[in-house]
This record gives sequence, C-alpha cells and structure tokens, in this order.
Amino acid sequence: MGAGKAVRAGGDNGGMDAAALARLCARVPGADPDAVAAAQGRQAQLVKPAGSLGALEHEGERLAGVHRSCPPRALASPVVAVFAADHGVHARGVSPWPQQVTAAMVESLRVGGAAVSVLARRVGVEVLVVDVGVAGAVEPGPRVLARKVAPGTRDLSVGPAMTYAESTAALGVGAAVAGELVDAGHDCLLTGDMGITNTTASAALVAALTGGDPAEVTGRGTGIDDPTWRAKTELVAGAVGRLGSSEPMEVLAEVGGLEHAALTGFVLCGAAAGVPVLLDGVASGAAALVAQAMAPRVAEHCFAGHRSVEPAHGVALAALGLRPLLDLELRLGEGTGAVLAFPLLAAAGDVLREMATFASAGVPRA
Amino acid sequence: MGAGKAVRAGGDNGGMDAAALARLCARVPGADPDAVAAAQGRQAQLVKPAGSLGALEHEGERLAGVHRSCPPRALASPVVAVFAADHGVHARGVSPWPQQVTAAMVESLRVGGAAVSVLARRVGVEVLVVDVGVAGAVEPGPRVLARKVAPGTRDLSVGPAMTYAESTAALGVGAAVAGELVDAGHDCLLTGDMGITNTTASAALVAALTGGDPAEVTGRGTGIDDPTWRAKTELVAGAVGRLGSSEPMEVLAEVGGLEHAALTGFVLCGAAAGVPVLLDGVASGAAALVAQAMAPRVAEHCFAGHRSVEPAHGVALAALGLRPLLDLELRLGEGTGAVLAFPLLAAAGDVLREMATFASAGVPRA
Repeated sequence: MGAGKAVRAGGDNGGMDAAALARLCARVPGADPDAVAAAQGRQAQLVKPAGSLGALEHEGERLAGVHRSCPPRALASPVVAVFAADHGVHARGVSPWPQQVTAAMVESLRVGGAAVSVLARRVGVEVLVVDVGVAGAVEPGPRVLARKVAPGTRDLSVGPAMTYAESTAALGVGAAVAGELVDAGHDCLLTGDMGITNTTASAALVAALTGGDPAEVTGRGTGIDDPTWRAKTELVAGAVGRLGSSEPMEVLAEVGGLEHAALTGFVLCGAAAGVPVLLDGVASGAAALVAQAMAPRVAEHCFAGHRSVEPAHGVALAALGLRPLLDLELRLGEGTGAVLAFPLLAAAGDVLREMATFASAGVPRA
Repeated sequence: MGAGKAVRAGGDNGGMDAAALARLCARVPGADPDAVAAAQGRQAQLVKPAGSLGALEHEGERLAGVHRSCPPRALASPVVAVFAADHGVHARGVSPWPQQVTAAMVESLRVGGAAVSVLARRVGVEVLVVDVGVAGAVEPGPRVLARKVAPGTRDLSVGPAMTYAESTAALGVGAAVAGELVDAGHDCLLTGDMGITNTTASAALVAALTGGDPAEVTGRGTGIDDPTWRAKTELVAGAVGRLGSSEPMEVLAEVGGLEHAALTGFVLCGAAAGVPVLLDGVASGAAALVAQAMAPRVAEHCFAGHRSVEPAHGVALAALGLRPLLDLELRLGEGTGAVLAFPLLAAAGDVLREMATFASAGVPRA
C-alpha cells in the first residue's frame, strides 16, 4: 500500500464521512523541526555567503521539513491537478464569460492548448484535469478524470452552494486524486482550478475564514467593470453574512465551490502523505484556508507558487503564513502560477543536496 | 559565418579598438516594433482573459521583438557565461572574504558544485566560466575558458582600475565569447559574474552612469558591517568624484572591473546577434548600463532575471527600463538569478507559440 493509499480516506468515487475526514485531518503532521534545523545548519556550510540565496533558502529548509530529511529528496515527478467545476452564482452576472467556457477549457486542457498546458511542458510538470462539477458533459480520457459530484453548485447568493453530502463528496474526490497521484509516484502536487465565476466563491471563503472585509477581498476576476464589481462585492457580503458558524465544512458547503472542496481534500491528503503541495492562486489559497481550519499545521506542507492580482489571495497567503515565490501579476488560475514556480521550489531543495561545502571545495571563508 | 561571428569585432583574445567597438555598437538594432505589435495582437486571441498572464505577456511580446518574429522561436539552448575577475580595491578591506575565493569558486564552478551550477542543472542551462581577470592561476578546461586580460584590476580608490587597453581587451573577450556561443547554437545568453569585491565597482559604475548618490547605490555585498559599509560608500564617492567625463569607456576603465568590461561586450554582441540576453544581478546591470551608454537601444534585447538586494541594482534596472522576473532577495551573483528566471522567459515565448486560440479551440469569448 503506497503512501497515498495509506492516507486516503474515501473510495475512488470520493465518499467521505465526518469520521473519515477527521481521520484524514489527524494524519496531517507538522513539518519536522529537526530536519528544518539541519537544513539551516547545512545552508551555512555551502559555498555561498550566508543568506545570499534569499527566499530560496527558506523554502529549501521548509522542503526539508516536509520530507523529514536533510537534504530533502530531489523533486522528480511533479503533477498539477486542475479541478474544474461550475457555479450557480454565474446566473447573477458576476462574470462576463459564458458558463460554457469551463467545459470548453477542459477540452483545451485535454489537447494541451491551455496556458497551463504550455507552461507545464516547458518546466516538466504533468497535467491532469479532474471534472468534479462541470455543468456540461465531460468525457474521461488520458489527461481527464471524470469524477463529477454535481453539474455545478447552486447560487451561493440565495442559499447554500452545496449540500453537506456534495461538499464532502467533492472533498473526497480531491483526497482520492491526491492519493492516486502519490501512489503513482508523483512527489510534488501542484494545485489548479478552472471554473467561470470561481473568484466569487473564493472571495466569500476567504472573507468567511479570515474575517476579511468583503470589499477588500473581492476582486475583478478575469475582468469586470465597476458596477459588476460592486454587485459582486454585495453578493459576497450577503453570502458571508448568512453564515451561522465558522465551522469549515459548513463554510465550504455554504459559499464554496466543488473545486474548492476538491482542492481542500487534495491539499489535506498531499500533506498527510508527506508530499509538498505547491499552491496556485486565489482558489487554491481559499481551499488551503479551509484545510487549515480543519488541520492547523497543513500549511507547513504548502508552498505558495505566486501572488495573484486577486485581493483575497494576499489575505489568504498572510493567513497561511506563506510567502509567494513569484509576483508576476498573474490572474489566470489553471495552476499557471504553481507550475511556473515549480523549478524554483525544486531548485531550493537541489541547493541543499548538490552544492559543495566550504570544506569539501576548499574555499576559504570570510 | 554564423550570426555571432558576423558581429564579433575582435580576435579570439579579445583585442578591440575604438573603431571595432563603434562598429559593434552600430550593429545593435532596436527590437522590431512590428513583431511586438503582432505579439500583442496574438495575446488577445489566445484562450485566456486579456492580460491574465501579467508580466509574462509583456516579456513574451518583447521576446518577439528581439526575434523579429511572432510568435518568437522556442528558446532551446540557453547558456550562462560567468565572467570571473579580481579587484585591486579588495586591499581596502571592503569585503570580509579573502581574494582567493574568486579562484576557488572558479574551481567549484568547474566541478559543478557552485550555486549556479546546481540551479542550472535543474533548469537545463549550460554553464561556462571565463577567467577574464582572476588574480590566481586558472587552468582552462571543458567548462572553463582562460582569457585572462590581467590578474585583477588596480585599486579604483586611488586611480584608474584599468588602462584603456585592458578595458577594451576585456570588452573584446566578452564580445568574442558571446559570438562563439551564438555560433555554437546557443539561443539565449545569460550573464553571470564571480569576483570578490565586485559590488564596489558595480556601485561606482551605476553611480557614475546614472548620477545616483553613492550612499544610495552602495550596498552590503555578500555581508559587511556598518563601518565597512561607510568606508565602502566613501570610497565609491571618491572614485566617482574623480571621473572627468561620463564617456562610457572612460567610466568603465576608471571604476569598473574586468568582468564588467567583459559583460559589457557580451551584452552588446548578444544584442547585435539578435539573441535575447537574460541579465543577472548588480554586476550585470552595471555592465548593461555601460552597454546602453554605447548603444542606446541595447536594453531592448535584455531581460532582467531578478531584482537583487543590492540597492544599485534597482537603480540600474530603472535606468534600463527593465522589470525583473523574480524578486527573491538574492545577492549571490554567479548568474543565479538569471538562471532561475530562464524558464519564465522561455515560457513567455512558448505561450505565444503554443497556446490555442479562441477560434481554434472553439472556446466562447466574454
């Protein structure tokens, strides 16, 4: 039984009850402080001035903590899972894009023509698309998993986006996919998302879980005008105001999306399996916040690929305590920021494993 | 005769007179505005919201301008040239590191144990070290070119660091190396440097060429205390104050280093050959400023890998009009920031060449 299967709680179709979820969360350890300390000590021995690799040094040390080993192992088989789903709130006009774009983009991902497909080829990351809630029909295929829980959520502006059963099923899909990928030998899990209108749900999740002001976390998504932004903000505020609790599964079901639920399970299962999870933008950040509310140390296994233009993302990163590797004003999703950051994270670990030391190289010290 | 040889002005040992330098500079074109415009138009056809790839879109368009082609060609064979040299100003105590570190690090680069060696393996960049002025003996080898012009510069705090003949010879070495690499099929030139104390010369070059305040451009290098920083700043101010002209070859000879001169020639020759030049940190930025003073449109062929912690680097990037791809608080040199940024630059071009369009993929538009 592989590391992924060992921590997978549900069946392949994702059923996960409260007890199974609690068991999964309990299996998320903190990073290993001894490995982190050993990595910090090793940085000082390498042939470079102390601290001269900046943020890369810190991420390398954190990777050692995730691997519970100094130096960390080489990251050799990364994969980005793009969870695709639709949103009932689309009917409220919060996006200029037709809902059919979600299904159409799944087809672009299938044939390798999407942005993340192109970037992933350049940096050697495998791409997998998971239909966890696309409104239209999606055929399974070599790069496409058909794990639809529902054909999109309900309109979160008027009531719960998902039932409890739907949100736990979608969470189970994400956990199952992570487990399968780890069992297949993937050693770095990258998060991706595709879902027209999903920045609305992302903003609502971040506002609900951090207490952030809806006006400060609601962004422009893929591009909306001022009146649409004001309507979107009011809608987010209304949905968050309706919440009777901050219990993470309730928040997730009430204002989240099926891809957020799946990403939550994906992050939890990756962390429980001891595999580094490289997060993309605001949808991933929102899901990681849900995961953190369930398993407080999960973020110790997470790395932030980039800082998105979406304001909720900065709030989420701060709450997760993560510093983004990239800040390129991306606002595309699909896992693009995570994929672009993968070589940086991998290189941070390589430094600890492959660089010469002052002693081994005979280089005099300051 | 390859593109590199066509623009190379000097012999293999780098001799370059004023007329040859003028011819080289005259061969540096601007980027092609038609290709840039075509790339901007193409971005709008690709299956993504307008502008959603942020800074990556701009860099992809600039790459099209350098290649004079939309889409730009795939970057398939990058190489980083690490120009190594020593500095007479080391005797003034402006670095805590012994001067022998420069030669010792050349040996670490030779065996692949330096930071840039490790990062370059991860992202598929070839590494070449060029001894253009190391104080100690350096044997040539498969990864090491012996092109020493002088065993280090003179002390720039008391007089000219180089003679005019030395600085033009070193510039010729850099141009020749760029030409050889382009002729060998390399399609992206990355800049690197290794030289204990070279942030002193970098700060002086940037102050002299931008009119920057020495106190604002002088940094901590690889790590110095307050009294050393004050002494370094005074020394930079004194050297810059001694300059009788802002003529770039005079500035270079008076306060620069042999690696700065070589990098200047490397940048000029890469640009003249129509090859994108990906710049590393402050030494590269200072050299690119010298190149810009000679060939005003050279920066149109340059890309900024990262923003260094060194304050002179930010000033140089602003004067060059370049936005860095990374901001990771690196301050190591060796080409580390350029190498880490290579996948981002390459991916920016890939997007224009490989992404599906709305029309080709049948994706509905906003």
